[in-house]
Amino acid sequence: MSEARKTDLYELTMAMAYIHEGMTAPATFSLFVRDLPPERGFLVAAGLEPALDYLSDFRIGPGDLDAFANALGRPTRELVPLLGMSFDGEVRAVPEGTVVFANEPLLEVTAPLPVAQLVETYLLNLLSHQTAVASKSARCVLAAGGRPVMDFAMRRTHGLEAGNAAARLGSLVGFSGTSNVDAAATLGLPAIGTMAHSYIEAFHSEESAFHAFARAHPERPLTFLVDTYDTDGGTRSAARVIKSRGLGADSAIRLDSGDLADQAVRARRILDSAGLTDVLIVASGGLDEYRVDRLVREGAPIDVYAVGTRVGVSADAPYLDSAYKMVAYDGRPVMKLSSAKTTAPGQKQIFRSHGCSDVIALRQERAASDVRPLMRPVMRNGQRVTDAPPLSEAQERFAAEVSQLPPEARRITGPLPLRPGFSDQLKALTSQVRRRIASEILAPERV
Amino acid sequence: MSEARKTDLYELTMAMAYIHEGMTAPATFSLFVRDLPPERGFLVAAGLEPALDYLSDFRIGPGDLDAFANALGRPTRELVPLLGMSFDGEVRAVPEGTVVFANEPLLEVTAPLPVAQLVETYLLNLLSHQTAVASKSARCVLAAGGRPVMDFAMRRTHGLEAGNAAARLGSLVGFSGTSNVDAAATLGLPAIGTMAHSYIEAFHSEESAFHAFARAHPERPLTFLVDTYDTDGGTRSAARVIKSRGLGADSAIRLDSGDLADQAVRARRILDSAGLTDVLIVASGGLDEYRVDRLVREGAPIDVYAVGTRVGVSADAPYLDSAYKMVAYDGRPVMKLSSAKTTAPGQKQIFRSHGCSDVIALRQERAASDVRPLMRPVMRNGQRVTDAPPLSEAQERFAAEVSQLPPEARRITGPLPLRPGFSDQLKALTSQVRRRIASEILAPERV
Repeated sequence: MSEARKTDLYELTMAMAYIHEGMTAPATFSLFVRDLPPERGFLVAAGLEPALDYLSDFRIGPGDLDAFANALGRPTRELVPLLGMSFDGEVRAVPEGTVVFANEPLLEVTAPLPVAQLVETYLLNLLSHQTAVASKSARCVLAAGGRPVMDFAMRRTHGLEAGNAAARLGSLVGFSGTSNVDAAATLGLPAIGTMAHSYIEAFHSEESAFHAFARAHPERPLTFLVDTYDTDGGTRSAARVIKSRGLGADSAIRLDSGDLADQAVRARRILDSAGLTDVLIVASGGLDEYRVDRLVREGAPIDVYAVGTRVGVSADAPYLDSAYKMVAYDGRPVMKLSSAKTTAPGQKQIFRSHGCSDVIALRQERAASDVRPLMRPVMRNGQRVTDAPPLSEAQERFAAEVSQLPPEARRITGPLPLRPGFSDQLKALTSQVRRRIASEILAPERV
Repeated sequence: MSEARKTDLYELTMAMAYIHEGMTAPATFSLFVRDLPPERGFLVAAGLEPALDYLSDFRIGPGDLDAFANALGRPTRELVPLLGMSFDGEVRAVPEGTVVFANEPLLEVTAPLPVAQLVETYLLNLLSHQTAVASKSARCVLAAGGRPVMDFAMRRTHGLEAGNAAARLGSLVGFSGTSNVDAAATLGLPAIGTMAHSYIEAFHSEESAFHAFARAHPERPLTFLVDTYDTDGGTRSAARVIKSRGLGADSAIRLDSGDLADQAVRARRILDSAGLTDVLIVASGGLDEYRVDRLVREGAPIDVYAVGTRVGVSADAPYLDSAYKMVAYDGRPVMKLSSAKTTAPGQKQIFRSHGCSDVIALRQERAASDVRPLMRPVMRNGQRVTDAPPLSEAQERFAAEVSQLPPEARRITGPLPLRPGFSDQLKALTSQVRRRIASEILAPERV
């Protein structure tokens, strides 16, 4: 499908009005999250790479004109001024895997006003969704305290596209594998998964199901799901199969329901007394960072955590309070004033000191020597500045960034997010634009 | 992309074990929701049509074998037994738009065991996600009490696919339009939307922005966004533009932030005193069924509700506790016994009496004359029984079904879902299978 149709109708009606008025000067839009959801001490910037792919491919073709005309109820010929429009602008952004906080721009787009407007909807969609899921996934990695975390979300994400995003974002923050075959194949991620309860039920006994599985998969480390009927009995069956087949250290059992901590203790005891001290215990079933954290704190002898639904849909924060706000048009800084949702004008930069102490500044400000700017040019004239980086770059960035976070931001329950400050120059510009709006725009209409 | 890759790795490892063991007899899997989320008095079955499209197209080709081999870390030749496998089974389901409750099968698949297993992941994904969003959307329609509801969710759904699903599902339960251009074009839905705050900011005054919009869109009813700087002032500007251009009854103003009830009262007063009693007020901005319900109860003079993010991601219930459970294999009813997640065995039917008083029964049971069966054959030998129905069929079905729901299930806050009963025959079969498992499967392993 054409990328150009991934938009809301109002982007189109605005673009048409801009073209009609000859308002095609460059505009800058800033995409940021106004407030972090409760129970988030930080966000992990994500979605930039698919967003740049989208912008690279954005081009309005004849088929799009027909679709637009249909949506607007206007003849196609009236849409002709849009034909051939592509994204030829500049993008500055924080790279994927960067830790970010409220009000920090994830991305700034500068392009002729109509096209900068048309790309709003899908940029917001990609960056909001993916940053939400990456942030939730990152908390699972922190909760697991070094134990491997796996993505099992595909069956309940909001479509396949979201399932593949969950797999990629899990990997970005340090997951060890995914159950999702398409994502594993497409993204080159380790694929993991073995059997369901239904598999056990299809056989006349649990142990015969395990043996059949081992016969069919002679070359793989095997994981046996032991809680279909009775977890202790299932663990003993698995232990017998593992011993009789000499599967040893490559194998694992999986617990998927009930009191996981208690069952893991009992299963560990059964495995150990069978001499299978190197057989691992995998836990799954409704896990998220809160439950993983509790299990780890309780000392549950669980070696691998598989997280699914709640993480893939970011269940406690399934969306972010994100905004795509115009901050400059034709060289003039602008802002929205009404109610509580005031936004700061002008193109920006984020300066980070050690410990993620951040200042949001204007783009042209100079950094002190001990701070580093987080936003960098990623697209010029509609072309990526560099080739798409491998996922490993974002993985390494996240690992380095998260280690600098203070403990209260990393906390799973009741985390305290850092609050970036605003530079003096940005504060001065904000006051100045506010005064200008009050005098030029509000005053005459109050008459 | 090939439909066959939309699966979890464990579906594949199980399918291989089944083929290896010659276990290719027909199996029946039942897809249902175990418990309704809090604050849901009913669910609206949805996702069946895309699920049938998926099953129709499911076929394992040579490229899939390579992807599977890669995911499994095995040579492609070992996957050859899967080559050419397609979905050639039977599907019985409740049609889209049907009101359903806990434990009622949305769908039952009967197919050779390996293929019935391979389709689990994506069937669960489609039906869980779409039923969740349709159910949330339906509550918005109920809350709005006859006032039009619009879908504005695209910018924060989990990807474009989820955005298009939200537009379709909103329409299914009675929404009047969508902001999503691609969904409107593809599905033939009314597209709606006009301008953002950034549009106003791009001009030197709010009123000049409104005039420019009217010049560019001479043929459309226009909606003016009035809360960029000061809502009363914006409403007065809009009133002047509407009057001076004679836009009258076709037009509207939109409120998108702040105290919507208070602003709507003030805006209505301003419009009425300008003689614009037929200009509508549209409200948007963080709306969901709870907020719409409150605004309607407060008597806010809002004519149209645009709901977005919270509805498109089903924010208070972003997933359903759904399951795809084997209920029969090779003529033998089966069930999972462990912990609290017992499932009832055998192929099923749902019998509904007036007022949505339901009984879950076995497939072969006869209905009394005053009840109707909800599940119907929709696919035989991998082919749809009828052509894909138009969306209007599901729309009419939902409208008829929801009108039969008792008020306590329709309630927005603290709804009470109906609890279907189980037929005597189903209860008897459940006890019998439970006893068989206890004697055949559990007992020997307890040794």
